[in-house]
Amino acid sequence: MYCVGVDIGGMSIKIGVVDSNGKLIKKDRVVTDIAGGPHKIISDIGKLILSLVDPYDNDFAGVGIGCPGAINSSAGVVDRAFNLNWYKVPLAEELMRMVNRRTLVSNDANCAALGETMFGVGRTYTDTIFLTLGTGVGGGIVLGGKLYEGNEGKGAEMGHTVLVVDGEQCSCGRKGCLEAYCSATALIRDTQKAMEKDKSSKMWEYAEGSLDKVSGKTAFECSKLGDKSAIKVVDRYIKYLGEGMLNFANIFRPQAIILGGGICAQGDYLIYKLKDYCKDRNYGFADTPRFDILAAQLGNDAGIIGAAALIFSNNQ
Amino acid sequence: MYCVGVDIGGMSIKIGVVDSNGKLIKKDRVVTDIAGGPHKIISDIGKLILSLVDPYDNDFAGVGIGCPGAINSSAGVVDRAFNLNWYKVPLAEELMRMVNRRTLVSNDANCAALGETMFGVGRTYTDTIFLTLGTGVGGGIVLGGKLYEGNEGKGAEMGHTVLVVDGEQCSCGRKGCLEAYCSATALIRDTQKAMEKDKSSKMWEYAEGSLDKVSGKTAFECSKLGDKSAIKVVDRYIKYLGEGMLNFANIFRPQAIILGGGICAQGDYLIYKLKDYCKDRNYGFADTPRFDILAAQLGNDAGIIGAAALIFSNNQ
Repeated sequence: MYCVGVDIGGMSIKIGVVDSNGKLIKKDRVVTDIAGGPHKIISDIGKLILSLVDPYDNDFAGVGIGCPGAINSSAGVVDRAFNLNWYKVPLAEELMRMVNRRTLVSNDANCAALGETMFGVGRTYTDTIFLTLGTGVGGGIVLGGKLYEGNEGKGAEMGHTVLVVDGEQCSCGRKGCLEAYCSATALIRDTQKAMEKDKSSKMWEYAEGSLDKVSGKTAFECSKLGDKSAIKVVDRYIKYLGEGMLNFANIFRPQAIILGGGICAQGDYLIYKLKDYCKDRNYGFADTPRFDILAAQLGNDAGIIGAAALIFSNNQ
Repeated sequence: MYCVGVDIGGMSIKIGVVDSNGKLIKKDRVVTDIAGGPHKIISDIGKLILSLVDPYDNDFAGVGIGCPGAINSSAGVVDRAFNLNWYKVPLAEELMRMVNRRTLVSNDANCAALGETMFGVGRTYTDTIFLTLGTGVGGGIVLGGKLYEGNEGKGAEMGHTVLVVDGEQCSCGRKGCLEAYCSATALIRDTQKAMEKDKSSKMWEYAEGSLDKVSGKTAFECSKLGDKSAIKVVDRYIKYLGEGMLNFANIFRPQAIILGGGICAQGDYLIYKLKDYCKDRNYGFADTPRFDILAAQLGNDAGIIGAAALIFSNNQ
C-alpha cells in the first residue's frame, strides 16, 4: 500500500508518494498559483498526483494534505488560509473527484506531528505532543497513534496557550501566549532588546552590526561563545519553552514532546537545556513518569510524509 | 447491567450500586479507618460491596473506584495518597480478589469528569474538559466518551499548568499554576488581601470581622451586593479562570468545559461571567467552534456515579 502526501506552502506545493513504512518513493513540486485561485491550485495538485501514481493501481490508498491555516478536517474544508487567500475551500471533496481516492486534509502542524510520531523520531511512541518553533508556534497532538484534533479539527493550538496573563501581545489577540515567547519571531524580538541594552555583546558582530540581521540563531550561537547577554536571552527562551512543555506534560503525560521548526536546528544544544530545565519540575512525586524531549528528524520531507500519514493512520 | 462505584474520602468511603443509565440504586458508607492501614480499608470496602450486591449476579459488571492522590490507573495501584497515608497500594488487584469482578481505579477528579460527561450535565457531549474548583484545582479529560489519562494515568493535571511564569507559589513546587489563582484556597487568599486593603469593604461584615472566617463565598456574595473590592476580586478570579479555560479550549477544542467543586455553588452567576469573558477570546477566526461552559450537576453522588462510570465506559 502507498499513499500520496501533499504539502501546501505559500510558494510551492510538494507532492510525494509514500510507502507504508513512511519511505518517500518519489516526489515532485508545483508552483503555488495563488493568483489563479483555489480551483486552479487544486487542479494543479490533482494533475501532478495523477502523473506520479497510476489511478487504477489498487495499492494506491489515498491522498493526505497538509495545509496552513484554519482547517475543518472533519469536513475536509479549508476554512481560512491567509497566505493562500482561501476562504471556505472544499479542498478534500474537490481533489477527491480528480484522484478518485479517499482524501483527507489537516493543518500542516498536525500532519508533521503525525508524521514524526508514525515514521520519524517518535516512532517508538504512541502518545506525543508536537511543537513547531518557527515564525509562530504550531502544535499537534497524537494519542494512541492517531491525531487528536478537537471539534472541527481546530484544536491542538498549543502555541496559543497563555503562559503570562497580561504578558507579551500575541498575534491571536490574547496576551502572553507561548507563541509570544517561544516563536522565532519572539526570540528575535528578545535578542534585539538584549542587544540594545548591551552594545558590547558579541551578538552585534554576529548580526553584522544590524538589528535587521538578527535571526533565531543569533542568541543561540553567541551563547555558545559565552556572551553573557546572549546566554540570558537563551536562558529566558528555555525557561518559557520549558514551562510551556511542562504544562503540556501535566495535561497529557505524553511519552514524548517532539520539537520541530527553525529553532530546532539548534539540535542537542536546545534539547539538553530543555531536559535539564524540565527534569525536576514534572508534576507530582517521584513516581510520575518522565517525558522524552526529541528534535524532529524528517526534515524537508516532513510535510509530505506527515500528510500521507493521515491516510495510513486512518487505515490502521 | 449494573456496577458498583466507590468514592474514597479521608473521612468516609461512599459506595453505591449504579445502573447503566447512571442512576444510583442504593448506597451506603463506611468510615475510612486510616489507622487500620490499607488492607483493613480494602477489606471494609469489599465487605460493604458484598452486602450491597449479589456476587453471583451476572448483571453485576464490575467495581470502579475513585481515589484521591497519585493513581497509576493502568496498574490499578495507588502510588501515593497523602490523606490516606497510602504508598504503592495495589488497590484494584486486592479488591478484585474479594469481589471477583473487573475492578478499575482512577483519580477522583477523573471519575467526576467521566461521570458528569456520561450521566450528568455533559451527557450530550463526548469531548469535555472537567475542572474541580476546590481546595486545589483538579482536572479530567474525556475524549470520544472515554477518559484520557496519559502515561500511567497521571495526566489531566490541568490545575498544574502555569498561567503566570514566576507567579504565585503553587503547592506543586512550580510558580503561577492555575491552582494558585483559581482554587478556593487562592480565592480566599485574594479575598483576605483585598479586605486588608479596604477596611470599609462589605466583605468584613460578611466575614464577621475576621479574616479567618473568609471563605470561597465571601467575595462572590459581596460582589452581588455591589462591593467594589469584592467585585475586583471576582473579576480577577474570572479572568484567570477564563484564561485557563481558553488555554484548554485552544488545546482540545472540546464541546464543553464542565466546572465542579465548591466554587461551583455560585452556579449561573459564575457561569455567565465566564461565558462573557471567553466569548470573544476563543482562538482563531469566526469559524472556530465555541465551547459550552457548564456547572456539574451530579452533586454529592458524583464520586460514586463517576467511579461506576469507569466500568461502564470501558464496557462500551
